[in-house]
Amino acid sequence: MSWHRKHLLDIESLSAEEIITVLDTAREFKAVGERDIKKVPALQGKTVVNFFVEPSTRTRVSFELSAKRLSADIINFSADASSFQKGECLKDTARTLEALNADVIVIRHNAAGAPHFLARFLNAHVVNAGDGAHEHPTQALLDVFTIREKKGEIAGLNITILGDILYSRVARSNIWALRKLGANITLCGPSTLVPRVFEQMGCRVTYDMDDALANADVINLLRIQHERQRKTMFPNIGEYASLFGLTRARLAKTKPDAIIMQPGPMNRSVEIESEIADGDRAVILEQVTNGIAVRMSVLYLVNGGKREDL
Amino acid sequence: MSWHRKHLLDIESLSAEEIITVLDTAREFKAVGERDIKKVPALQGKTVVNFFVEPSTRTRVSFELSAKRLSADIINFSADASSFQKGECLKDTARTLEALNADVIVIRHNAAGAPHFLARFLNAHVVNAGDGAHEHPTQALLDVFTIREKKGEIAGLNITILGDILYSRVARSNIWALRKLGANITLCGPSTLVPRVFEQMGCRVTYDMDDALANADVINLLRIQHERQRKTMFPNIGEYASLFGLTRARLAKTKPDAIIMQPGPMNRSVEIESEIADGDRAVILEQVTNGIAVRMSVLYLVNGGKREDL
Amino acid sequence: MSWHRKHLLDIESLSAEEIITVLDTAREFKAVGERDIKKVPALQGKTVVNFFVEPSTRTRVSFELSAKRLSADIINFSADASSFQKGECLKDTARTLEALNADVIVIRHNAAGAPHFLARFLNAHVVNAGDGAHEHPTQALLDVFTIREKKGEIAGLNITILGDILYSRVARSNIWALRKLGANITLCGPSTLVPRVFEQMGCRVTYDMDDALANADVINLLRIQHERQRKTMFPNIGEYASLFGLTRARLAKTKPDAIIMQPGPMNRSVEIESEIADGDRAVILEQVTNGIAVRMSVLYLVNGGKREDL
Repeated sequence: MSWHRKHLLDIESLSAEEIITVLDTAREFKAVGERDIKKVPALQGKTVVNFFVEPSTRTRVSFELSAKRLSADIINFSADASSFQKGECLKDTARTLEALNADVIVIRHNAAGAPHFLARFLNAHVVNAGDGAHEHPTQALLDVFTIREKKGEIAGLNITILGDILYSRVARSNIWALRKLGANITLCGPSTLVPRVFEQMGCRVTYDMDDALANADVINLLRIQHERQRKTMFPNIGEYASLFGLTRARLAKTKPDAIIMQPGPMNRSVEIESEIADGDRAVILEQVTNGIAVRMSVLYLVNGGKREDL
Repeated sequence: MSWHRKHLLDIESLSAEEIITVLDTAREFKAVGERDIKKVPALQGKTVVNFFVEPSTRTRVSFELSAKRLSADIINFSADASSFQKGECLKDTARTLEALNADVIVIRHNAAGAPHFLARFLNAHVVNAGDGAHEHPTQALLDVFTIREKKGEIAGLNITILGDILYSRVARSNIWALRKLGANITLCGPSTLVPRVFEQMGCRVTYDMDDALANADVINLLRIQHERQRKTMFPNIGEYASLFGLTRARLAKTKPDAIIMQPGPMNRSVEIESEIADGDRAVILEQVTNGIAVRMSVLYLVNGGKREDL
Repeated sequence: MSWHRKHLLDIESLSAEEIITVLDTAREFKAVGERDIKKVPALQGKTVVNFFVEPSTRTRVSFELSAKRLSADIINFSADASSFQKGECLKDTARTLEALNADVIVIRHNAAGAPHFLARFLNAHVVNAGDGAHEHPTQALLDVFTIREKKGEIAGLNITILGDILYSRVARSNIWALRKLGANITLCGPSTLVPRVFEQMGCRVTYDMDDALANADVINLLRIQHERQRKTMFPNIGEYASLFGLTRARLAKTKPDAIIMQPGPMNRSVEIESEIADGDRAVILEQVTNGIAVRMSVLYLVNGGKREDL
């Protein structure tokens, strides 16, 4: 039950035990967010840089608050991807951030592998806040944290992920984490966005919503990543909503205790009917709250923090 | 002399006693800004979100500094109004901010009523930092604070507000606050921007500058809100300046101890001659300084702080 | 060995003794950056405003971190130069920032002299973070700090500055600082960018790279300031690189212990070959790290801090 990694680059390379360590530590930090004074001195005097080459207000703010709750100093550094012509320039910028005595560099980048590239030459800790269509490890960890809180043991749970799987780093990271912890995963969506190749990751692939939803304990709705799709992968939003949107009619046929997840931002009336989003089976806002605890846990662990010191 | 409100949404619904409570508490906080260490631990561990859907650097910075002086963590979250197509999306964003454990959401929005809308479903405290042409309560409170500091008792003072009243949330909030405290208010400006309907709020309306200025103890100069006027409401800036600008010639005919206020940013040579802005009767920069104390007071009170604990 | 200035506006008006005071104090602060908790309470409760009218992420972040390590509160206030039509408007904005109880205003501006203009009417401390093509005093101080750390005594060192001298505030501030401390300075670059008038500042001017590099102890590579050059001052980047870029062939003919400096951001393959930038003679990242210590020193000293109190 310990953590020895310098970076958090992906879920793929983590062991089940490491994932559990992050989640258990996050549970301790969640209690901090419920206290009147939501702060611990764990990273006092440390500097965290939010290095966002791709815009993302939600994730940026979540890391910013996580760092502040750990009493770290946090600097936001946004760069336009177009200003980086070559890998070398990204390297120079990252090394400059490190030279500013950054202890942790949280990187969001539109290129898959950017965090791994940085980790090869930086002494600072690197945390992947989403790299292209590759991985978004802290999102997966907060999703698993939320499932665990609601459903207990992950092993044996039936988890259905709907929507744009192909272009989704959230899907990839979720699949890695959930498979390692023993869940059964079903993927469903337009066939162009849910290729059968995912079966090689141990997932079941179906294009029939009723089949996908029938035995699900957890339903995770991914939104359509308009910005990552160069070709038209499905006719239009209306058709997507009618074929793969979660409607009350479809929800009525699921297990009564299945929970509804969505990583945000939501497209109401597309992947989810508004009434479901506001209903008591949705845990969407809890995911947001849990994101802080999970990111505090990650920042704490990569800096050498131990759960038993909390 | 106490405060029991969860939010600060407007001045209209406040009692005179509540306004006085904010002002008296602000006086305590003003002393903090004059100390060498300008900080108190009152909101340590609390999170304040500056949620600005309409840009405003001055008000944003003022709230940011106010929160920092109270030792709160503050997150700036700016959104483009165009990204909110429907009220539901604003709702989702606000609920996401709350799910990030925000204790206070300070909202600036171009739509009147946005803060009230948020207050209906959020558990967080909501503070209105300006909503459309409706209200700007903290601006009015800092204006009244400044008048009180300079003139003592508000009741019976003659206060003249000049300029664009129709489109001004500052005017509306000032009128509510000053009327509740017993001031006599005169409004003056182009007839298209100062309709007689304001008489129903207990104000005197005149289109004659000499008449408006003659007995004023306080002269509050509002700027022309170019951005909120779709139709041309007056011929041009030059004509406005010549008819309604505060010139030295006009100032010479006012009471010698009348003070000059302006909520900023100033248009020198339009609503005010440059020499007056820099003269000793202008209290414009004191308004800015008092804004911090008043906003500290508001953030403190909505969080359940008591004046007697300071 | 003491400091009595309220502002840091330029290097030109400093004495050698004052420069040494900044550097010696910075040495104390550099040790802070190497500690586990990189913070001192020296400016707790003080407010620093980063007032950037010209964009600069690197310098802005460096000042931001410096202020945070001193436990000051820092506010970023960026303005678009185009929104300032007249000097008076800049004045109003600066006075507004001061009225917000700012203790220090760090200003970056595209107009030479803007910091001096502010210093004439503000009570707050003004720190020049680069004004037009005039001066960039903290960059020069961090350059000299780095040279001193690597080479010891400045007096008698041969320092070569290459590239765009004419448009470079970095060159101007470096020349002032290094001349005051007794270094021998050689300038080299395209004749249009290195006019002979710099000989009046006590520098040697040459257009022959081999001559410029032969006896150099320090080689400082300035980048081409595309944005400041309205007319074409040299044929093209490729020709610049071939005539004035630091190549391995040219480096081989320099003193073996000459160090390579570059204020960043770097244009690899233009003013410097990539292998040299990453080689062990380059101190480019140390310059970045030293920037924090030097800026902490400046913020501390203008606020009345004394080296002996550290």
